[in-house]
Amino acid sequence: MSAGPSSRTSRWAALLRTLADALEARRDDIVAVADRETALGTTRLNGELTRTTYQLRLFAEVLEEGSYLEATIDHAADTPMGPRPDLRRMLLPVGPVAVFGASNFPLAFSVPGGDTASALAAGCPVIVKAHGSHPATSQLAFEVMDRAAHEAGAPDGTLGIVHGLEAGAALVAHPAVRAVGFTGSVAGGKALLQIIEGRPDPIPFFGELSSLNPVVVTPAAAAERGNRIGEELVGSFTLGAGQFCTKPGLVLVPAGAEGDTVVDAMAAAVRSSSPQYMLNAGIAASYGRISASLASAPGVREVARGADADGTGFQGVPTLLETSAAELPHEVTEECFGPVAVVARYDGEDQLFAAVDALPSSLTATVQRGSGETALPSRVSDKLLGRAGRLVYDAYPTGVAVSWAQHHGGPWPSTNSQHTSVGTSAVRRFLRPVTWQGAPEEVLPEELRDGYDAVPRRVDGVLRLPR
Amino acid sequence: MSAGPSSRTSRWAALLRTLADALEARRDDIVAVADRETALGTTRLNGELTRTTYQLRLFAEVLEEGSYLEATIDHAADTPMGPRPDLRRMLLPVGPVAVFGASNFPLAFSVPGGDTASALAAGCPVIVKAHGSHPATSQLAFEVMDRAAHEAGAPDGTLGIVHGLEAGAALVAHPAVRAVGFTGSVAGGKALLQIIEGRPDPIPFFGELSSLNPVVVTPAAAAERGNRIGEELVGSFTLGAGQFCTKPGLVLVPAGAEGDTVVDAMAAAVRSSSPQYMLNAGIAASYGRISASLASAPGVREVARGADADGTGFQGVPTLLETSAAELPHEVTEECFGPVAVVARYDGEDQLFAAVDALPSSLTATVQRGSGETALPSRVSDKLLGRAGRLVYDAYPTGVAVSWAQHHGGPWPSTNSQHTSVGTSAVRRFLRPVTWQGAPEEVLPEELRDGYDAVPRRVDGVLRLPR
Repeated sequence: MSAGPSSRTSRWAALLRTLADALEARRDDIVAVADRETALGTTRLNGELTRTTYQLRLFAEVLEEGSYLEATIDHAADTPMGPRPDLRRMLLPVGPVAVFGASNFPLAFSVPGGDTASALAAGCPVIVKAHGSHPATSQLAFEVMDRAAHEAGAPDGTLGIVHGLEAGAALVAHPAVRAVGFTGSVAGGKALLQIIEGRPDPIPFFGELSSLNPVVVTPAAAAERGNRIGEELVGSFTLGAGQFCTKPGLVLVPAGAEGDTVVDAMAAAVRSSSPQYMLNAGIAASYGRISASLASAPGVREVARGADADGTGFQGVPTLLETSAAELPHEVTEECFGPVAVVARYDGEDQLFAAVDALPSSLTATVQRGSGETALPSRVSDKLLGRAGRLVYDAYPTGVAVSWAQHHGGPWPSTNSQHTSVGTSAVRRFLRPVTWQGAPEEVLPEELRDGYDAVPRRVDGVLRLPR
Repeated sequence: MSAGPSSRTSRWAALLRTLADALEARRDDIVAVADRETALGTTRLNGELTRTTYQLRLFAEVLEEGSYLEATIDHAADTPMGPRPDLRRMLLPVGPVAVFGASNFPLAFSVPGGDTASALAAGCPVIVKAHGSHPATSQLAFEVMDRAAHEAGAPDGTLGIVHGLEAGAALVAHPAVRAVGFTGSVAGGKALLQIIEGRPDPIPFFGELSSLNPVVVTPAAAAERGNRIGEELVGSFTLGAGQFCTKPGLVLVPAGAEGDTVVDAMAAAVRSSSPQYMLNAGIAASYGRISASLASAPGVREVARGADADGTGFQGVPTLLETSAAELPHEVTEECFGPVAVVARYDGEDQLFAAVDALPSSLTATVQRGSGETALPSRVSDKLLGRAGRLVYDAYPTGVAVSWAQHHGGPWPSTNSQHTSVGTSAVRRFLRPVTWQGAPEEVLPEELRDGYDAVPRRVDGVLRLPR
């Protein structure tokens, strides 16, 4: 009877692609402004913009594929509970979404980025609170996207922007706003939650807050390639000056000679590193303070540090600390934003498991295992499974691919819900189910009418793919 | 390569069916105890138990069907963002769930019931806080289920029970508890949320809180069958002594003669009604107080009331109130638990739409339309869509079928999340996604291994049904 996506779907998918095209067309200008404001460098910023446009286009495919609607039809029937009316369920946009831009990703988690793309994909207008670290980048990206949306015929108010803490607070309190997406600190998230609790109608809050991202190096992995693991770990924890939510902050390394190889390689790489430009003065100062206090925590010693800051910009010095897994100080189990990592040495599996049990939940947990090693990695995985949203094997947690199977979330403090903020299922945060009971056809969305078959639907309990 | 559900799925599905069988086997005893404690009558209580066992068996089918796992595989590939590692995502149980039994459904939303069934279906242990209105029913149902679980070989601690407010608070604060399911008042929900916010690791809270459930009767419907609608409305708002979360609390009826027919029929039915036994002394007292204060709110008049209480048990007198939609007093837009409804008379569509705009969000909204009438019902539906989780046509909101397409939820104050507490998707509240990156096969769940094909999976973006 019907072929192809509904007109609503086509319209939103076209808008996502229009926004991607518009950002691409102004790529050089946007990257230049972002580099002036953040000093992240053009390679990284071009990568962020590529990620963002890829993501917008992937969400257009998600809309056209249609599973995200969860279209479900139960025809009227007799059941052991008695007669059941005709029930039809689908996910609808929640309404306007407030998105809080992040300091550390001016083009991938800010005005353009994951939350904006997934909220627009859900069919929700988006109002971004620009991060104070890159207001000009935010404003330019907004203007490019807003103009493109208007030219594409999107309704007024599809995109909005506000600047400043007060405007952000007012946005979260605004009656028209129906959900909030946030990437930032636990303290920032809690402040917004407090505003939400003060509303007459508290709304859903999706916060990505804090993550330690532990790495377990097994004795076999250390013996096999300790040098390479050490070098790669430093590459991962200093990437983007350690200002990634997926930075590996704690590395569990075996005691003994094979573990020494890992630590020696890390120390050498850190010693030869230069001071790194951080996002702003506040973040740099806070990094200096927290990393110093970490270094002087009981049982913690400094193994190596990079070259001293040369006084230009806001610099952070890469730092490697070491402690014992047997008496893990609580200080080292908290996220420290910046280029520092703590190595905790474990003597035997009991110490390793006890240390893992003492860790908070994280976005990620990583296992470096020996080639073909199965027993210990399986036991460690079982332990880590309950406290991380993504388990990484023989690689590093930095780098979060946008895809159907990605998950970027985890139990508190990594996020405050079971939802993801990266990957195609991020769209579900901004959708709400509605069921129509005994509804006449004219009030039903196209996807719930009899005979429609352009999206996967569950009909009387059976999942059916489009013909 | 593989056929049939995983061993974990088979185990939990078998447990759900075992619990259903065990409850059926003790049906008469359980219903008798529940009737002694709640005076709800054996017909109603047998219906609740049937609902509960049907639900347990339906969730067993949900597990075996397997879509709920959202199994997703993205093989390693090159993308415009660069090389993507192998990523595999699936939903896993969140861990132990605290379930708060409801006063008004001793067998359908208490120890046995929607939250317990969906949490067990997710693979989570459940600890129920028994409601003080029916402790003996709760204890008996727990013992029946707990014994059956043990005999079926379920691990110790699969089911638990606590009694009393203090124990309930301690349960929500307990470090091992990973999520809370609650059906009750806004005040009760907020008290639990406060305990959760005090945890070092706040956990997800799924509350079903309060609902007005407006009904719109169009002029055409009133003219066509005003008498029948009036009688049926009284049947709906006095069902279970008005102690349903889906009780229609506000009815928008046209001014003029056709609307008078509806109100006259309601008044006649209310006048001939007997006082109704309510769940406990507190609820009956609170009903008496709130319904009296509603009746004396500015602009509200009492149209009819049932026979006076005869002094036995905790009785509530069915009451019909009337007001004007043009100046809807805020008192009548709040849920009143018990057999009272307010009719708000509207004079023209502008008054109707303005009144709908003034309503809080609800679990349900109902439209009674004329036979073949389309224009006004469509416009009313558009208005109601944003403020209700279920739209009901030419029927009544009481009665919430358990099915794949059901949704029982809505924006605040009806629930505090976008999730449902009835229907098969209720299981998702107690699941969290995990992604494995570059994982060796032995650490992957069976459903994410190459070659497994017994559940629907999305592989490289394409949804595939079991062969």
